[in-house]
Amino acid sequence: MRATVMHAAGDVRIEDVPDATIVLSTDAVIRVVRACICGSDLWPYQSMQPSAQGQRMGHEAIGVVEAVGKDVRTLKKGDVVVMPFAISDGTCVFCHEGLPTACVHVGFFGNQGNDGAQAEALRIPYADGTLFALPVGLDEALIPSLLTLADVMGTGHHAAVVARVSPGKAVAVVGDGAVGLCGVIAAKRLGAERIILLGRHPGRIALGREFGATDVVSERGSDAIERVRELTGGHGAHSVLECVGHGQSMETAIAVTRPGGAIGRVGVPQDAAMPGSLPAFFHNVTIGGGPAPVRAYIPDLLPDIVEGRIHPGRVFDHTVDLDGVPGGYRDMNDRKSLKVMVRP
Amino acid sequence: MRATVMHAAGDVRIEDVPDATIVLSTDAVIRVVRACICGSDLWPYQSMQPSAQGQRMGHEAIGVVEAVGKDVRTLKKGDVVVMPFAISDGTCVFCHEGLPTACVHVGFFGNQGNDGAQAEALRIPYADGTLFALPVGLDEALIPSLLTLADVMGTGHHAAVVARVSPGKAVAVVGDGAVGLCGVIAAKRLGAERIILLGRHPGRIALGREFGATDVVSERGSDAIERVRELTGGHGAHSVLECVGHGQSMETAIAVTRPGGAIGRVGVPQDAAMPGSLPAFFHNVTIGGGPAPVRAYIPDLLPDIVEGRIHPGRVFDHTVDLDGVPGGYRDMNDRKSLKVMVRP
Repeated sequence: MRATVMHAAGDVRIEDVPDATIVLSTDAVIRVVRACICGSDLWPYQSMQPSAQGQRMGHEAIGVVEAVGKDVRTLKKGDVVVMPFAISDGTCVFCHEGLPTACVHVGFFGNQGNDGAQAEALRIPYADGTLFALPVGLDEALIPSLLTLADVMGTGHHAAVVARVSPGKAVAVVGDGAVGLCGVIAAKRLGAERIILLGRHPGRIALGREFGATDVVSERGSDAIERVRELTGGHGAHSVLECVGHGQSMETAIAVTRPGGAIGRVGVPQDAAMPGSLPAFFHNVTIGGGPAPVRAYIPDLLPDIVEGRIHPGRVFDHTVDLDGVPGGYRDMNDRKSLKVMVRP
Repeated sequence: MRATVMHAAGDVRIEDVPDATIVLSTDAVIRVVRACICGSDLWPYQSMQPSAQGQRMGHEAIGVVEAVGKDVRTLKKGDVVVMPFAISDGTCVFCHEGLPTACVHVGFFGNQGNDGAQAEALRIPYADGTLFALPVGLDEALIPSLLTLADVMGTGHHAAVVARVSPGKAVAVVGDGAVGLCGVIAAKRLGAERIILLGRHPGRIALGREFGATDVVSERGSDAIERVRELTGGHGAHSVLECVGHGQSMETAIAVTRPGGAIGRVGVPQDAAMPGSLPAFFHNVTIGGGPAPVRAYIPDLLPDIVEGRIHPGRVFDHTVDLDGVPGGYRDMNDRKSLKVMVRP
């Protein structure tokens, strides 16, 4: 079968690899109906050291179950599933608490020897816990939005939940990537009164407004901070969604948070230390977030997608086949594409 | 009148200063019945650059109102009051939200030109908002515990609230100073099932056990982390109270927090950046806290003191008069005293 393998920064190849198979009795194999390229895939695309063996890529998919191991209880061949980015056993204390990304057997697709989803098929460990069987079939119109349940919609929702968005709140979203835009959807869905999107890309800003952003701040640095304060009565936003992961974006997030407010950070931090410790402390700003427990959020978010109340699938502005994946990485890295869907 | 003035690291003097007077119509003047020396006073004691003018010291007091400005409405001469460490107007949006340490007129005693409490008397700006009039008189037995409402008990409580302590939780308290010990009281009061105190000083540990610590971890570094994990089924504590402020203690706090858990930090951070950003992120650990809104917590904590259910005043292990204040700083800095009470 064919799969995406990254060998070094900027070096993404489509290669023939051994067919995905059942290895353990709790595995499933899925055929990939749609996958996509994630903003977080761009970190290794920009920085990966050369590797002869390479790394399988892709951690978001809608798929169809092709085979299940003998201990898989809840899935059968032919089921249409969401494949969230994290492997989780579904039975441990953290899975029961709704934090499958802290599962005692957690793993991440496209990492640590796990298969990647930018491929024709892949092996799914702990299939019962990891996969979410959809109650709907392969409805072409719904597929893009359902695919966002594998990561970006659940991740934007996580940022909003951790940032304590609730009715009447003023919310700032730092970052106009796919996660930031899904954060706008999540903030609106949770009742935010004002949603300020910090971003500069015209197409993304326009989509953000359609998703519910009431204001856009395109200034940089201290001007951006000043502008958010102006829009929030001088005090800052109650809830801030940090959807980038750079030190600079974290500093901005802290600076635009109202005293006593909360930040949900979901951009993978690129630095070992967090800047802004002192202003966060002196303003009693709470900072949380991390790898989103998207598997646990699907039951909450799915009805809004199926019943057409939210359309996060609109973040996909380009679709490629497997041969188009290397170009998809290039276009996302050059910010020519917002988010690329892969149809193997 | 006489007051404590710090002129440089290690240089604390008792000096004659102009009598405290009403300057603005919203001021009061209080006579200090008891003040104390705070762990945070030791930061300038260790690092203050020489200053000819010096800095008034002390931000915790029980006092008696001596005079009020013409616009003071809720206080009168003779009232016995708690003086929290922060000045707050009592009327702004943050005061109404229960975060007086973010008051739009916030100030801190012993800072920014404000009087200090290690003195015979001091001027209180925004007296209606700042002071809390006690429903009890000068009961000698209660005074030490009432005095802790000015800072350390409210601060330990803040750490516990922000760390989301609730019945059944496993709690770790990093730091065996007065705030950490009050954090133990707060954690027990909020129903924690297991309270692990990280500290090494024999007298403080013993007091911590009397306050409700179920376990003490006196190892250092990675051994301490390992020990807390052992005590919590391998996963860490749900709620962690960071009561020191050093980078190392923050790293320890993050490392001993269970995935999905929360840290309440109340030790004044000594570094601009917070270490441990990556482990905090990957474990979805929430970090909050800051200057505690102790004024807002008094109505909740006071009955437990007056009715004898908690005894935070036991953190005072030494009492001095004003002339004894420089020695009190020295003894606290040398960890010979846990917390020094001042009887001017």
